[in-house]
This record gives sequence, C-alpha cells and structure tokens, in this order.
Amino acid sequence: MSKHFADRLIEAIKKKGNPICVGLDPRLAQIPKHIKEEAFDPEKTPMACAADALYEFNVKIIDAVCDIVPVVKPQIAFYEIFGHEGIRVYEQTLKYAKSKGLITIADAKRNDIGSTATAYAQAFLGEVPVEVGGEEIVSPVFDADSITVTPYLGWDGIKPFYEECTKYDKGIFVLVKTSNPSSGDLQDLEMKDNSSIYEVMGGFVDSWGANDLGESGYSFIGAVVGATFPKQAEKLRELMPNSIFLVPGYGAQGGGAEDVKPCFNEDGLGAIVNSSRGIIFAYEKRHDLGAAGFDEAARQACLAMKADLERVF
Amino acid sequence: MSKHFADRLIEAIKKKGNPICVGLDPRLAQIPKHIKEEAFDPEKTPMACAADALYEFNVKIIDAVCDIVPVVKPQIAFYEIFGHEGIRVYEQTLKYAKSKGLITIADAKRNDIGSTATAYAQAFLGEVPVEVGGEEIVSPVFDADSITVTPYLGWDGIKPFYEECTKYDKGIFVLVKTSNPSSGDLQDLEMKDNSSIYEVMGGFVDSWGANDLGESGYSFIGAVVGATFPKQAEKLRELMPNSIFLVPGYGAQGGGAEDVKPCFNEDGLGAIVNSSRGIIFAYEKRHDLGAAGFDEAARQACLAMKADLERVF
Repeated sequence: MSKHFADRLIEAIKKKGNPICVGLDPRLAQIPKHIKEEAFDPEKTPMACAADALYEFNVKIIDAVCDIVPVVKPQIAFYEIFGHEGIRVYEQTLKYAKSKGLITIADAKRNDIGSTATAYAQAFLGEVPVEVGGEEIVSPVFDADSITVTPYLGWDGIKPFYEECTKYDKGIFVLVKTSNPSSGDLQDLEMKDNSSIYEVMGGFVDSWGANDLGESGYSFIGAVVGATFPKQAEKLRELMPNSIFLVPGYGAQGGGAEDVKPCFNEDGLGAIVNSSRGIIFAYEKRHDLGAAGFDEAARQACLAMKADLERVF
Repeated sequence: MSKHFADRLIEAIKKKGNPICVGLDPRLAQIPKHIKEEAFDPEKTPMACAADALYEFNVKIIDAVCDIVPVVKPQIAFYEIFGHEGIRVYEQTLKYAKSKGLITIADAKRNDIGSTATAYAQAFLGEVPVEVGGEEIVSPVFDADSITVTPYLGWDGIKPFYEECTKYDKGIFVLVKTSNPSSGDLQDLEMKDNSSIYEVMGGFVDSWGANDLGESGYSFIGAVVGATFPKQAEKLRELMPNSIFLVPGYGAQGGGAEDVKPCFNEDGLGAIVNSSRGIIFAYEKRHDLGAAGFDEAARQACLAMKADLERVF
C-alpha cells in the first residue's frame, strides 16, 4: 500500500459512484436458518459453529454487494459476543472484504492510553512483533484499512493510531457526534464560550489531521457524525472541511437521504453513509425473495439506497 | 452468584486487608525467555505460541499473588494484539483468576450504542444466546465480574451494561478522570457553570448508580479516577461518595501512596489501586531473583505495595 487513506477512499467512492458503507453486523438470530444449519458441526463448540455461520453469511453478502459499494464496516461487538471464535471470523471477514477490493472500517471504538493504545493500533492497523521461539516475526493481525476510535482520553489515546496511520497509510474515524438518542448527554454540553463538546471535538479532529492531507484535500482522520442530527452535522461540516464523515443512522435508525446531505461538502464528497440492518437483513421485508435470496435482497437494498442518495444530490 | 458486586468487592478488600488490583498486562517482549521457550510449539502459529506464553505467565503470576490481593485486571489490548488467539487466552485468564477466588475487571473500555452495547455487555458480563443447529443454548463468554466502559455516548451506551449488572450481580467502572497526561484535553474543559467535564461525568455516574446501592453502601457503577491527578480525585470523592474508584497510575505511571489517598473515603474504603508493570514485571529490577523468580518478585512487589499503602492510612 502506498497511497494516502483519504485518497484511496475518495477514489473508491468515485469509482463506485456512491458513498455507501455496508455495516456487517451479523446478529445471529437474524441470519437465515439455512446458513446456520450449514455451519452446524456437532464436532465443534456452539460458539465455533455460530462464528462460522457469521462468516458464511458475510461472504455471501460481500459477494452480492462488492461491485456496487466502496466500503464495508464490520461492527466487532457482534463477533466478540462469541469470544475468540467470533474474533477468528472477524479477522477472516476483513481479509475476505479486502480480497474483493473493498475498503474496510473496523468499527471497534477502541480507546486507551499510551502503550495500551499502541497495542490496539498495531493490531487493527499496523503490524505486530511476535517473538516466542527465539526468532522475531512481524505480522499484520486484523489489517483493517481504518478503525473507529473514542476520544474521551484526549490526544494521548489518538496519537498511537495516528502513528500507525502514517506508517501504513491507514485511517481513523473519531467519534464526534454520535447517532444515538442520548448522544447529547455529554456531546451537547455547552462550554463557557457557548460551543458544545461535539464542536470542540470537531475542532480537535480538524487540527489533528490538518498537516497530513492527501491529494484529494482530505485527512486520514475522519469523524463519526450521526445522520440523526442534521443540524449539528451542518455545523461540523463547516468546522472540519477536510475530514471525511462516517455517517451512521441512515435507514433502520431513522435517518433519510435529506438528513445525510449536510454531512457532504459542496462537491458531493466528504462523507460515507452507513447502513447495516437495512441492507444485510433486507430479506426480512422481501417475501418475494425469502431467506434463500437474502444476498440478492441485500444487493437490491444497496441499489435502492444508491438511488435514494442520488435523489438529493 | 447472588451478592451485589460492590458488597463482594468490599468483602474481598476487607478479607485480604488491602485494595490492590494487579493489572495483568503481559507485554510479550517483557515476558521471561524461559516462559516463551516453553510455550513455543513449531506445530502452532506464532500468534498461538505468543498467546500461550501470555497465559502461562499469567497463571504463575496469579498463583503467586492470589492469596495476597483481592482483584486482578487484565487489559484486553495486550491480548487482542494477537487476534483471536490472544482473546482465547484472555477468556482462559479470566476463568483461571476466578477459580483462584479473585475478583476480575475486564479492562476493555468498551462503548457503543443500543443493541451493539448489549452485545458487549452480554459477552463480558452476562450470557449469550447461541442457536445454530436448531437448539438454543445460553452460555457465558468472558464472564468477568466487571468491565471498564467509556462514557462518550451517554446513558444509551451505559444502560445495556447496567442491565447485565443488575441481572448477574456484576459491576462497571466508567472512565471519569483518566491518568494519562492529555486526559485534560476533553475531561478538564470548563462548562458554563465553571464545573469541568470530569465533574459532570462524576455526577452522571453517581446518579446512575444511586438507586442500586449494596449493603456496603456502595454502587455497582464505579469510576476510573487516575492517581496522577489527586486534586481532581479529591473533588470527585466528594461528588460521588457511593462509587468505588478504580485507580490507575500508581507505580510505573508515577503516582505514590499519598496520591491515591484522596480516592478513598474516610472509612479507608471506596477505592481499588491498580499496579500493572510495577508488579508483574518487578523481576526486571530484582537481579537477586532473576527471570526465573519473576513470580516471587511479583509476590514481593504486592507485599511492598501493601506496606506502602498502609503507611498513609
């Protein structure tokens, strides 16, 4: 890899003609029965079978959408719920998505201080030194293109990720204004100068990335900005013109195409819009296709989302 | 389990006569050579060998300190760095610590919204429903006694953990004022009413736990408050009298016994003090014991820390 993360991302968006990110959040209970039955193996633990089902599901979804969308974002919580077996298929999912030419975002919201954050950054973005039998090897582990991170700890907690980004041409998306109903508990608190915490954070993210813009004019330090708060998104767009926004909240969480528009710059770039359930479990509302056609339903949901977004641009 | 988390914790502190938490942060490069050589198996992947070395190291540390200290806190980043193999031994470490009568804190600083946070909460504290071959089983995964969580997302992100705590008598420690140099970037920002973010967070934590105090008078919602900022700790102790503080920053990070004192209530309770490197890698400064005596060095470091803390109470 030898190209700035933002440039790779913008290039992929232009090539595919849309800014859609498919959230690979494979809740086991919603995975079609036939996938789970195929994954069942009485020789393996239930956790291993469950994890295998997630992977098989992901492979079929990725195959169905990889020529349409530029980005996928597997949410690690839905893998970690099955312990190490889940993490095994999380690694495999990232690898498979990459092999299909997709840009990957590890949605892990990791955060810690100093050398602990370095461990996360090496695992998710960089390479890990391993020495056991006398010989040291250096190996990638998750090898995602980017990761979401939480900023409560300040610059200390971001810097190790920043360093791996610089070294390996990777990216991060920092939580700034999240899509959940109570995101305002902390993020909307007003400071002495009338600005809100999310604006302060936006300013931090803008400044952290300011010296490392790609040829596209964008930074490898992006921001998570929810589609459910379009007014706040508009303010943030002004405040951080060079950051790419990762926008959750479209679809199942209630945001529509109009709501995500403020997350984009005037050139129609600068944001990727995530949909998870609305795409990967689209089959639940498509009785014509049924569970057997869950991958086709996901493909059609991507095309419908693409058309929906085109409508407002 | 049928006892309030705070009561179990306070009972363990009283029984052992100290509030020490040993941070199980086994950086591979610092693990004695003989442990790594024993763990080496050419039939296995380097990641699996590395993970096995972490586990063997942990077992010997746990054996050496389990009759002295009440709590251990494995930091998951140092396991996740080896991918699913690391997570495998993270599960094993928690299990082994529990079998030795220790209370466990999964230091994972997890955070997310709604159903995603539920997945983390079930995995770390509760039980996970698994259905693949037609039959549903419900199984614990990490089964820690408690977990650290990051509050940037507001109550939405805490509530799913709160619910598992209520159901399974577990606990959480919410980041309030962290020990790292740049913790003030966000946490010290001043609000309109002159209070700081960390004070606002302290107020939240206090109120979230207020209705669920144990017989000890403490809440199962604790707070992470760094030993490196004693003045802020003093304010927080007043603000949240019923929360147990998890105090990092003692030892390697520069905090001493005097610095942690403000984290305690007048009854000498209400805080647990973590030391990681200062205990588990104590052998590096003990040339008399050497690498072969790393476990004995850890044991003696615990006893020295206990004496150091007793000095100020």
